Amino acid sequence: MAAWAERLTGVRGVLLDISGVLYDSGVGGGAAIAGSVEAVARLKRSPLKVRFCTNESQKSRRELVGLLQRLGFDISEGEVTAPAPATCQILKERGLRPHLLIHEGVRSEFDDIDMSNPNCVVIADAGEAFSYQNMNRAFQVLMELENPVLISLGKGRYYKETSGLMLDVGGYMKALEYACGIKAEVVGKPSPEFFKSALQAIGVEAHQAIMIGDDIVGDVGGAQQCGMRALQVRTGKFRPSDEHHPEVRADGYVDNLAEAVDLLLKHVNK
Amino acid sequence: MAAWAERLTGVRGVLLDISGVLYDSGVGGGAAIAGSVEAVARLKRSPLKVRFCTNESQKSRRELVGLLQRLGFDISEGEVTAPAPATCQILKERGLRPHLLIHEGVRSEFDDIDMSNPNCVVIADAGEAFSYQNMNRAFQVLMELENPVLISLGKGRYYKETSGLMLDVGGYMKALEYACGIKAEVVGKPSPEFFKSALQAIGVEAHQAIMIGDDIVGDVGGAQQCGMRALQVRTGKFRPSDEHHPEVRADGYVDNLAEAVDLLLKHVNK
Repeated sequence: MAAWAERLTGVRGVLLDISGVLYDSGVGGGAAIAGSVEAVARLKRSPLKVRFCTNESQKSRRELVGLLQRLGFDISEGEVTAPAPATCQILKERGLRPHLLIHEGVRSEFDDIDMSNPNCVVIADAGEAFSYQNMNRAFQVLMELENPVLISLGKGRYYKETSGLMLDVGGYMKALEYACGIKAEVVGKPSPEFFKSALQAIGVEAHQAIMIGDDIVGDVGGAQQCGMRALQVRTGKFRPSDEHHPEVRADGYVDNLAEAVDLLLKHVNK
Repeated sequence: MAAWAERLTGVRGVLLDISGVLYDSGVGGGAAIAGSVEAVARLKRSPLKVRFCTNESQKSRRELVGLLQRLGFDISEGEVTAPAPATCQILKERGLRPHLLIHEGVRSEFDDIDMSNPNCVVIADAGEAFSYQNMNRAFQVLMELENPVLISLGKGRYYKETSGLMLDVGGYMKALEYACGIKAEVVGKPSPEFFKSALQAIGVEAHQAIMIGDDIVGDVGGAQQCGMRALQVRTGKFRPSDEHHPEVRADGYVDNLAEAVDLLLKHVNK
């Protein structure tokens, strides 16, 4: 692999995944990953543009940002690209009225959306709300539609809580796709539109940007397909086998966000 | 399409699906489909061999047969090919100790199976037991195994209860496959081994047999891939679009089991 200086040349903007990079969620809110609070602060003091790009869909942006601020992070709502607000925009543009299968924590994001007489289903990482009854209701709504539309906030396989690996929305999306014989529309990483909206928010071109995430497929693979570079951190849901993934090869693997920021600040703009 | 006499020529044995063909399950046990009790009785009095071939995995064979007998059907345990007993045989042959994600009603089938220190996961149509917690536990067991083995009792998309369409095990199998990055082994229709074991039990060759079911893919497509003929009934989970399925074309479509038996008794052995 080329030297770091070469791999990082021309980087002007950084997209940061949140869960598994900044912190691990869990009981009581979760815990900051060692060194990440300082790493974010150092990035923000650097000439690099920074945007947070998350598939978090259990919490509203307000709740997420509040939690991160309590953990010590320098972050505000306006700096976060998240799937729920992006979904609301799509629903309004297309006149879609959703049946929601989501976590209570994110419901407030949909406060001004018309949900009468649903003509689509929106699913997100619903956690315990992924009961058989709720899944079956979403299934029945889709089966009753002439043109069933299923929107999934991300398609993650799993994420890491402080207590261990947890099933993410992706499997449940696949379950409804299979049962209904349809294909979901994904809002969130690795959808190119989602990465692009994050880049637009900081005025950085894909070839000038680098994604830092713990998900080899959703973060690293997705960003690379958009023409960005991407680093995988060995925190969060990282597993050693990710470094030998059959389809995706990161532009670099680092122990954690702190190491990624060390490298960026050392080699960028030199 | 050829005349019925031609399509049914040489049939010596009949495989009957149970749910959606004999009865619709539901609150209080369910209800026999009109004409099916008499149709089974007439088949049994005919020269045709009869075997019941079901993916039922919420109930033990004993419970299922007891329910059907109470609805008036002439059926005994020894006449039923079902996935749970077939799975137990596989577990024993391969030294597999399952973590079970199944309905309580079928648990007794696994009474003599070693479940200590699990080295595989077995899922079946678990209904309400498909909670997030139970799915997550199955996921975690698989992720901890070096060579994860997932056995699914059938892979049905949905079935029909008296109250409406209900999600079957297939979606949940897909969810675990996706989350773990593995491929499940299916025991039950449309697995060729399963159809073959049903045929062996009545000593009939595939080309001499006809399957009657309500599932265009699992019953009709699966049986045809084994060299059998297959009829789809317009009861149970049948939907009008099944008659224009992009991949599977039944050897005939009939309103219900009674019509199928009328045709068989009229045209077979002439």
